[in-house]
Amino acid sequence: MRLSRLGEFGLIDRIRRQVAVSRGVRLGIGDDAAWVDHPQGSSLVTADLLIEGIHFDLKWTSLADLGYKSLAVNLSDVAAMGGTPAYVMLSLGIPANFDTDKIDKLYRGINGLAKKHGVTIVGGDTNAAGSLLISVCLIGHPPKKPISRSGAHVGDDIYVTGTLGDAALALNLLRHKRRPQSRAEAHLLKRLHRPTPRLAAGALLARRNLATAMIDVSDGLIQDLSHICQASGVGANIQQKKLPLSSAFLSLAGKIGMRHALSGGDDYELLFCAAPEQRKRIETLGKQAGVPISRIGTCKPAANGIRVIDTAGTEVAVKAQGHDHFKKQWPRRRKNR
Amino acid sequence: MRLSRLGEFGLIDRIRRQVAVSRGVRLGIGDDAAWVDHPQGSSLVTADLLIEGIHFDLKWTSLADLGYKSLAVNLSDVAAMGGTPAYVMLSLGIPANFDTDKIDKLYRGINGLAKKHGVTIVGGDTNAAGSLLISVCLIGHPPKKPISRSGAHVGDDIYVTGTLGDAALALNLLRHKRRPQSRAEAHLLKRLHRPTPRLAAGALLARRNLATAMIDVSDGLIQDLSHICQASGVGANIQQKKLPLSSAFLSLAGKIGMRHALSGGDDYELLFCAAPEQRKRIETLGKQAGVPISRIGTCKPAANGIRVIDTAGTEVAVKAQGHDHFKKQWPRRRKNR
Repeated sequence: MRLSRLGEFGLIDRIRRQVAVSRGVRLGIGDDAAWVDHPQGSSLVTADLLIEGIHFDLKWTSLADLGYKSLAVNLSDVAAMGGTPAYVMLSLGIPANFDTDKIDKLYRGINGLAKKHGVTIVGGDTNAAGSLLISVCLIGHPPKKPISRSGAHVGDDIYVTGTLGDAALALNLLRHKRRPQSRAEAHLLKRLHRPTPRLAAGALLARRNLATAMIDVSDGLIQDLSHICQASGVGANIQQKKLPLSSAFLSLAGKIGMRHALSGGDDYELLFCAAPEQRKRIETLGKQAGVPISRIGTCKPAANGIRVIDTAGTEVAVKAQGHDHFKKQWPRRRKNR
Repeated sequence: MRLSRLGEFGLIDRIRRQVAVSRGVRLGIGDDAAWVDHPQGSSLVTADLLIEGIHFDLKWTSLADLGYKSLAVNLSDVAAMGGTPAYVMLSLGIPANFDTDKIDKLYRGINGLAKKHGVTIVGGDTNAAGSLLISVCLIGHPPKKPISRSGAHVGDDIYVTGTLGDAALALNLLRHKRRPQSRAEAHLLKRLHRPTPRLAAGALLARRNLATAMIDVSDGLIQDLSHICQASGVGANIQQKKLPLSSAFLSLAGKIGMRHALSGGDDYELLFCAAPEQRKRIETLGKQAGVPISRIGTCKPAANGIRVIDTAGTEVAVKAQGHDHFKKQWPRRRKNR
């Protein structure tokens, strides 16, 4: 079967079926990170492969930003489990025209973020390659009970950290011109190139046992919400007017803006569900973690699907749309199997 | 500085200097696998990135063999620490012309070997790509005392498992014609495409505390021996006539054969050092692990460098030659930072 027909998530399901699950694997393929047992204790593990020409274009991103982001997206996966990142394996495919200056710049971006979060690069693999390849595998320490995608219940509130759509709008801006011409544009570009992994919020949600399900928003709100819904066996209503949008986004998004907030990827915010009686504690947690947390919807029975209720109060079914989008073509990128 | 001038190992040293070493890292960049602490217990971690056109050519290798080998080279790294492999993160870059049949074949090769060694694929990343990319990160359980590259002493014996040069000779044969035409050729090709990670031997060496230093032979005997020598601060004499060569190798190698045994990569045998009083126990261990173990030389003071003593009894200094070779060009591949 052609992969364009199967789609990426179809392929991942196919792979999952072929892989024997063995003892010691508490969470395998299909969450933000795997959770595996050791003879003593356990670990979280996640990986991302970034390919020049597919995931990034060196015309649009600096090597320092690229280094930063290659680690940030993995940190975000560990955040989405409520874990603490610890060790990085970094494998590089390096084009022939690279010199040590370029490698240093890439490492500067990685090392700055690694240091901030107490993460150490412990090894990897260095290769010649036709184009730049960055493969990161991150190992983290789990909380007592990692937060998977599968624990949401009908009636749970749905929350998201930070703001949505900034990165997608920035990418759209980059497609038209290269340099930011206003503070608002600079803000959006920073959100695209230097996303903030929400480690403090994720860890607090796990420690206080507040979230029933969590994922990071890498493929877009609706797409990532659909993973929670599928894993948890629920549907969801999202109030479009409650989506958190930055002032930079509002000033630049124009008519097509809401599409970026609903379907744009690369935000690396945390999307999670929690019981309604936790509202007060979640509000407090947002302040402690230093990130705004917005309540954007409610979990519904699975038959409801995912619906976005627009500002006019009209319900718009978006579930099928999301799925079609990912089957139209062999997708550009999927963050995490 | 140009990478071709710095060389790969120079680059690795440069990276190592830039990376902050933090608590919890027992062995970081520069051994077959990293050894890292968790809040409870510890893990071994290793990674390899295989790139189409750089490390493999689909004209010469089947997808099942490629899947097998992409895991085998990582298992070999864990074997070289004396560890037990456990979990795999597998990230793929998949070309547009791939279909599910091809993916299935690749996974068949990986799964077969994974099952044999009780290893589970727990996640990864799936992407579209211009050419096939396979990035493997393997997590294993360490023995009580993992065997690093740095413990060899002057006077230690030097041993290698299995036979040397088969894979390099097979690659040479492949460059001239595609299909094996004799049993000897078929044997060599199997050694190239389906190397046997020496997990039992590695684990027994660690458990019985017999090896003072160990590495797997991925870049060629002399090159990998030089890593042990550098890390341990010793030199080495290798008796050329003691190098273990398969009958297939002997029947097909011809005049240039010995070069493959000394410098050819991809053998994935274990190269290790042990005190002379352990000879009897190592002989026994080889029988228990089901692999021949050959004593091929002796550790000397560092000033000796690495010398190969040929069949005529003449000493040939090869150290500089090995180093030059790796600086001549930005190298095709380095298994492990």
